[in-house]
Amino acid sequence: MKIGFLGLGGMGAAMAANLIKAGHQVVVWNRSPAAAEPLVALGAVAATTPVQAFDVELVISMLADDTSTRAVLLDSGALASAKAGLVHLSMATLSTALVTELVELHREQGVEFVAAPVFGRTDVAAAGKLNILVAGPEAAIAKAQPVLDVLGQKTWPLGDDPLRAVAVKIAGNFMIASAIEAMGESTALVKTYGVAPGEFMEIMGNTLFNAPVYRNYGALIAEQRFDPAAFRLVLGLKDVGLALSAGQEQRVPLPFASVLRDNLLEAIAHGDGDLDWSALSQVALRKSGQL
Amino acid sequence: MKIGFLGLGGMGAAMAANLIKAGHQVVVWNRSPAAAEPLVALGAVAATTPVQAFDVELVISMLADDTSTRAVLLDSGALASAKAGLVHLSMATLSTALVTELVELHREQGVEFVAAPVFGRTDVAAAGKLNILVAGPEAAIAKAQPVLDVLGQKTWPLGDDPLRAVAVKIAGNFMIASAIEAMGESTALVKTYGVAPGEFMEIMGNTLFNAPVYRNYGALIAEQRFDPAAFRLVLGLKDVGLALSAGQEQRVPLPFASVLRDNLLEAIAHGDGDLDWSALSQVALRKSGQL
Amino acid sequence: MKIGFLGLGGMGAAMAANLIKAGHQVVVWNRSPAAAEPLVALGAVAATTPVQAFDVELVISMLADDTSTRAVLLDSGALASAKAGLVHLSMATLSTALVTELVELHREQGVEFVAAPVFGRTDVAAAGKLNILVAGPEAAIAKAQPVLDVLGQKTWPLGDDPLRAVAVKIAGNFMIASAIEAMGESTALVKTYGVAPGEFMEIMGNTLFNAPVYRNYGALIAEQRFDPAAFRLVLGLKDVGLALSAGQEQRVPLPFASVLRDNLLEAIAHGDGDLDWSALSQVALRKSGQL
Amino acid sequence: MKIGFLGLGGMGAAMAANLIKAGHQVVVWNRSPAAAEPLVALGAVAATTPVQAFDVELVISMLADDTSTRAVLLDSGALASAKAGLVHLSMATLSTALVTELVELHREQGVEFVAAPVFGRTDVAAAGKLNILVAGPEAAIAKAQPVLDVLGQKTWPLGDDPLRAVAVKIAGNFMIASAIEAMGESTALVKTYGVAPGEFMEIMGNTLFNAPVYRNYGALIAEQRFDPAAFRLVLGLKDVGLALSAGQEQRVPLPFASVLRDNLLEAIAHGDGDLDWSALSQVALRKSGQL
Repeated sequence: MKIGFLGLGGMGAAMAANLIKAGHQVVVWNRSPAAAEPLVALGAVAATTPVQAFDVELVISMLADDTSTRAVLLDSGALASAKAGLVHLSMATLSTALVTELVELHREQGVEFVAAPVFGRTDVAAAGKLNILVAGPEAAIAKAQPVLDVLGQKTWPLGDDPLRAVAVKIAGNFMIASAIEAMGESTALVKTYGVAPGEFMEIMGNTLFNAPVYRNYGALIAEQRFDPAAFRLVLGLKDVGLALSAGQEQRVPLPFASVLRDNLLEAIAHGDGDLDWSALSQVALRKSGQL
Repeated sequence: MKIGFLGLGGMGAAMAANLIKAGHQVVVWNRSPAAAEPLVALGAVAATTPVQAFDVELVISMLADDTSTRAVLLDSGALASAKAGLVHLSMATLSTALVTELVELHREQGVEFVAAPVFGRTDVAAAGKLNILVAGPEAAIAKAQPVLDVLGQKTWPLGDDPLRAVAVKIAGNFMIASAIEAMGESTALVKTYGVAPGEFMEIMGNTLFNAPVYRNYGALIAEQRFDPAAFRLVLGLKDVGLALSAGQEQRVPLPFASVLRDNLLEAIAHGDGDLDWSALSQVALRKSGQL
Repeated sequence: MKIGFLGLGGMGAAMAANLIKAGHQVVVWNRSPAAAEPLVALGAVAATTPVQAFDVELVISMLADDTSTRAVLLDSGALASAKAGLVHLSMATLSTALVTELVELHREQGVEFVAAPVFGRTDVAAAGKLNILVAGPEAAIAKAQPVLDVLGQKTWPLGDDPLRAVAVKIAGNFMIASAIEAMGESTALVKTYGVAPGEFMEIMGNTLFNAPVYRNYGALIAEQRFDPAAFRLVLGLKDVGLALSAGQEQRVPLPFASVLRDNLLEAIAHGDGDLDWSALSQVALRKSGQL
Repeated sequence: MKIGFLGLGGMGAAMAANLIKAGHQVVVWNRSPAAAEPLVALGAVAATTPVQAFDVELVISMLADDTSTRAVLLDSGALASAKAGLVHLSMATLSTALVTELVELHREQGVEFVAAPVFGRTDVAAAGKLNILVAGPEAAIAKAQPVLDVLGQKTWPLGDDPLRAVAVKIAGNFMIASAIEAMGESTALVKTYGVAPGEFMEIMGNTLFNAPVYRNYGALIAEQRFDPAAFRLVLGLKDVGLALSAGQEQRVPLPFASVLRDNLLEAIAHGDGDLDWSALSQVALRKSGQL
């Protein structure tokens, strides 16, 4: 299939590479063109404008945030140039407000909008093992399914309203952030009673909390290994902000998210914004005078 | 071994039964004597006072809380009657303050105090599959080990200071409560976007949060199945209170625990105190006008 | 002086009327023109576009929020049409982000931007007794001073950076919201001990908290007199949002503002968004099962 | 009248002195006897035991907290020695739980228990200008009234249930703590926009928040003048704890009190426990990296 791909950050580049390796014809675009070069070496065609990347059968966007998505899809004229019947897989983590707006604009343009945000970091993307949440028109999802099968280990269908996949993605990230905070507070507490964070997390991660989130982040927290960042703390603040905004639109108070926001800001104020977001755990140490 | 066992609630009764089945001679005591009868039928001896249950080689206490532990161990004269060299396995979830006091009183009496709180509900206790956190004098733990091996699938040694096991137990329960709250807020959020709580929890429980806590509580939350309670919400408030107190003693602020306390109180104020503590999730629904 | 006035809501209409009565020649504009009629009857000239209201010596904007300010000043072409040397008194409560942007756009246009947000409700505005926070270029403030003297009982100069007045206004509103929440929680608490909210607030308002905010809002809370709203609860959420945003820009966590946001959302979820924002106090009653 | 007075800290000593000066015969007792000496010089009789100080017509207790009150009134045998008909004015800030217990014990002993907690610091006590909250049996209050008139500028009667006066005192202190936190967060916020805390507090304290709490604490915060302490931060934590406990008994969540508790702990963890409790404001500066 001829596939457009916009946004070649760590995640996007790994995903686009998998599509090329699977035999698809991929037209790639990135704001800074250097990111396209390794993919061209693999067989991709480099588009010079977003409009060119939209001149395909199926286009995937994996841009950093609302602002860049708005710039690349709308301000550039890409969506406005799209032919009716095109399928657009929106795989980035966007706000419910922007997706609501995009759904309407795509409808007007006759383009099929499918939300397909993912769980998994760069290494998971590279292995084609993402968990993909998908929601949108049934026929469009069916057309996209072979592509999703290349990118992920499993697709979780959530019906025809793209907002549903977006909400699940946002809530899932909020759950991860909450787990990090709970680990941070708990390890700060047990430390004052002489229990090393690693000792505590080993027990938790092998009993009640025997899940990837706790084992992986637990190790980072115990070893204070926050650099290099797999997911930067400032992006964590962005994602918690998406949860708060999604909640505000529907009048859902999220007190844990409010605590997370405050503590992430505190981390950034102390210079930790570019560390991995598991560095949120340092805030509990700082508050208790242990840092 | 001749073992005393004080406190025959759901947990204690199941644990004492396992000790009897394993061939130990068990002297049981409970405030309301009826709970001892099934164990006597299995071969236990019923003590009429805590003092009698302390006249053994190793005594286990599994009482409801600080107040009952203080009454049964101290006010009854049981500890004061104990012979030097007795090993006392304290397996209930107690405050760090009370354990600090008990450690000193046992030292004065020449009794070995070992903290051995557990993770696992009644069914896990009955199956002898508890996870046991143990801390205390090395020789006393060695003596207790065969008993611990009957009761649990695994013993997690935490050194010679009993407070360390207590802190881990308290922090672990706080982590569970935090997970319940995070699920409650998240499902309340996605519900407003048309995603059923069960749908959301199935995705989470099979991907990032593939752990017992999330799968088990996630199902209870999704199905709003809070009665009968495996662990009552008022006891959850007690346990979060233990975390807050343990934090206060060491000057560790725990903002998630503060949110949990507020929300558990709100649940109790609305009549949900005797439901399973996963009913904490109803608070997020109520706040957002969805209940 | 020939003065333009944009935004004739309750506050703006009262302020514009005072300027007319003081002998100024006032060109008024409002999105819905009916609001201009009583002022025309007093001697104002009705502008049909924002551009006309900017063709004056000094222009005052008192619009509802960021969105309307952006629409009226920027999208309409009003600022772009302004002559160099015009003084613009921005008296609405705007975000620090928008003001930062406006300062730059005014600089490019050669228009003097003065932030002059106010404390006081409609009745205070009508009496010309506002407290006015003012920051901007010294000469521009000097030129505006006679106008400020008509509108307010006192001008509080805050230097030449408009953001400083904006920050004080936002922080002041946050302090009021915090006072309302503190009264709400306190009265909900004492009520359970048999003390009527009015009894409690009478003591507070005549002793330690002998200030307008506590006496006025205390009476509304005690009497549950939330309708008609002097300041709607949804606007309170907007203002608390301005504090949170201002804090986020500078990495200042504001845990009280986070609680306020959650509780205001809860109030709106229960249908109280159009009541006076002192209805925030009902949330504490609801949480404790007293409503 | 022959009056017993137990507890000669800063507050108690000032109050006892006023009673002596007003011509009463005062029997004073303090744990460390040195505090009684200046009062003996004024004409007081020093009791060597609490029992002696209870052998009077009216006894006043002004002890530091629940623990000392329990020790002095109960463990010493003082209450048990009291004659029927004695009036006991309990003027300290105690928990609702202890007062509930004291009410019952006094009833059994036939002693009239009147709760009469006060607002005002040491200087106010010395000037006889306290605001006194009083609740208890009508006849007992009538008998105590001449004494209350010496100690305070005004008595606020709250009916016959002593808990009502206690609840108002606890809620009032919680309101003060909330005001300090709101000032702390607000001044930390405006500071990042270039507004000095003193500048901000001067505006607030002369407009909307023209009350002693804001003017007095505002000045301390602006000048970071926390030493010597008029009221130590650790006592503030005790008082916020009283609010949380009073709320827990009646199932009233107090989210502001939870934030206060966390932040007071953070202050203590950073060594500020013996500063004036307005040093709570430093926490907002620390969180935002401004300290």
